Amino acid sequence: MSPEFSLINEHILPRAGHGQGVILGIGDDAALVVGCGDREQVLAMDTLVAGRHFFADQAGYDAGWKALAVNLSDLASMGAVPRYALLSLSLPYDDRRTAWVAEFMRGWRDLATAEQVALIGGDTTSSPVLSISVTVIGERPARTLGMLRQSAMVGDDLWVSGQIGSAGLALALHLAGRDVPSALAQALHRPQPRLALGQGLLPWVNAAMDVSDGLLADLSHILQASGGLGAEIAWESIPMGTAVRAWAQEDPCLPLTAGDDYELLFSAPTGVRAQVLAVAEHTRTPIYRIGYLRAEAGICVKRDGQALVLPQRLGFDHFSA
Amino acid sequence: MSPEFSLINEHILPRAGHGQGVILGIGDDAALVVGCGDREQVLAMDTLVAGRHFFADQAGYDAGWKALAVNLSDLASMGAVPRYALLSLSLPYDDRRTAWVAEFMRGWRDLATAEQVALIGGDTTSSPVLSISVTVIGERPARTLGMLRQSAMVGDDLWVSGQIGSAGLALALHLAGRDVPSALAQALHRPQPRLALGQGLLPWVNAAMDVSDGLLADLSHILQASGGLGAEIAWESIPMGTAVRAWAQEDPCLPLTAGDDYELLFSAPTGVRAQVLAVAEHTRTPIYRIGYLRAEAGICVKRDGQALVLPQRLGFDHFSA
Repeated sequence: MSPEFSLINEHILPRAGHGQGVILGIGDDAALVVGCGDREQVLAMDTLVAGRHFFADQAGYDAGWKALAVNLSDLASMGAVPRYALLSLSLPYDDRRTAWVAEFMRGWRDLATAEQVALIGGDTTSSPVLSISVTVIGERPARTLGMLRQSAMVGDDLWVSGQIGSAGLALALHLAGRDVPSALAQALHRPQPRLALGQGLLPWVNAAMDVSDGLLADLSHILQASGGLGAEIAWESIPMGTAVRAWAQEDPCLPLTAGDDYELLFSAPTGVRAQVLAVAEHTRTPIYRIGYLRAEAGICVKRDGQALVLPQRLGFDHFSA
Repeated sequence: MSPEFSLINEHILPRAGHGQGVILGIGDDAALVVGCGDREQVLAMDTLVAGRHFFADQAGYDAGWKALAVNLSDLASMGAVPRYALLSLSLPYDDRRTAWVAEFMRGWRDLATAEQVALIGGDTTSSPVLSISVTVIGERPARTLGMLRQSAMVGDDLWVSGQIGSAGLALALHLAGRDVPSALAQALHRPQPRLALGQGLLPWVNAAMDVSDGLLADLSHILQASGGLGAEIAWESIPMGTAVRAWAQEDPCLPLTAGDDYELLFSAPTGVRAQVLAVAEHTRTPIYRIGYLRAEAGICVKRDGQALVLPQRLGFDHFSA
């Protein structure tokens, strides 16, 4: 168990309490509480720390975009329509910082305007380390157990949107001091939360998550939350760009464990394939069927019909990394 | 203008956007959005950084209590009933820290249980600096402009709850390396959010804030937000404990500028004094009428009938301090 999960399971979860109106508490991409009429309110909070979730010298625009994007991605994976955001900025204060904050807010605003998210509050404070906490609030039609981690069923198709591994390759190239092609840099710094796709999928899919820690790690979260299911994936069916496929020659698991994809990973009954594909087409989001869920626990990734040996550590842990 | 206010006014506010359903955005203790039926939802977010908002070696229990308390205090000043909280913990990870987090959650839980606040989500992440971000969500009956900073009126009585300066004296003693009497330490480390008082006051008061930056600084926020009003205060009427009165012999403004009181400061028409006092009695919260609001701008604090010379800097700025 990673230190983050250990902290949450041992110390935080037992003290979370069960309040009136809480439909789903800690443990998924977002919480669900009773909303108005037949709607549920969907709430998520994520913190990004400089040097961990983004580079200490990250351009302000990209940091602002990404801070909101990764939170909206949590709402997307619940099928929610975002409404409001609160932003807490902790940063060392100096004149250079003021210009950075202006750029940060420009990046934030461009995404917030596109997705109609109103910034309604928050906090600014001084800190030796630049850190950004964001809370987003959205809503969705009530759908019992819809798009939760725990809702996967044996026999479900396993789907993923977009491309996997691009952000991970961008990070690897950057850390190696090499040039990062702009398409890869875009994937790392300006992820597109899959909101329209998530909203359209809500009536059809069982389990869903956004891929933030890596495809295999996040899949394992779904499998564990759903009572210890397993999955079989065909490596060739996982969507990757040309550069990422080349990178995968080093190790076919690299793109599956890199994290920061912010794509939607979801499971749906085989009987709704046509509906799922129609949502993807309607929202102009590429999606791919990469495998299926089975009763036998564990993840099996087959390449050329052979099972790959998966790494011990399936993904990127923002806590221990 | 402090660096924090400058950042918010120049860069954040112009990009906040005005979303559907937003009643009150950035700039008050909490935001208001449309709720169900005739209710409004009230949302606040505050970040506490080790070494700035609490001691780096602060006991976990107190840090957990206070992180929730200061956020609930923002809801109290809007007359809201708290419902949900999200918590993001950023901390250096080691074994000692695990025990600290357990204590942190015990302090959090004791207050959350007493006030029926469900912890529904959040985040844990590793960071070189211990930092705690909290979002709280509550609700209140819709009351146009009720308990906002901008709602003060000329002629209003000015009231404050509890005692002023105790937390400030505790901090001053601690920083001087002296013993801190337990009543003062309690005021600093375990503030009591004035939720019942705030809820009871909602129908009666005009403007309200919680005193976090210092009585004079927070009063000046109300006066500025209400169009540049002024206030006259009788120093003798400000509630202070014996030790704080002794401290004030050094400088009578010390308790008024120290911050961290988390009491309610509010203005109400003279015609509702009986109702305001009844709420205080019903909720067993001591309150004191300390002055009144007038058209002439600025704050005048009179002691023995003489106007005190107020310091340039009226309060504690968590950003620049």
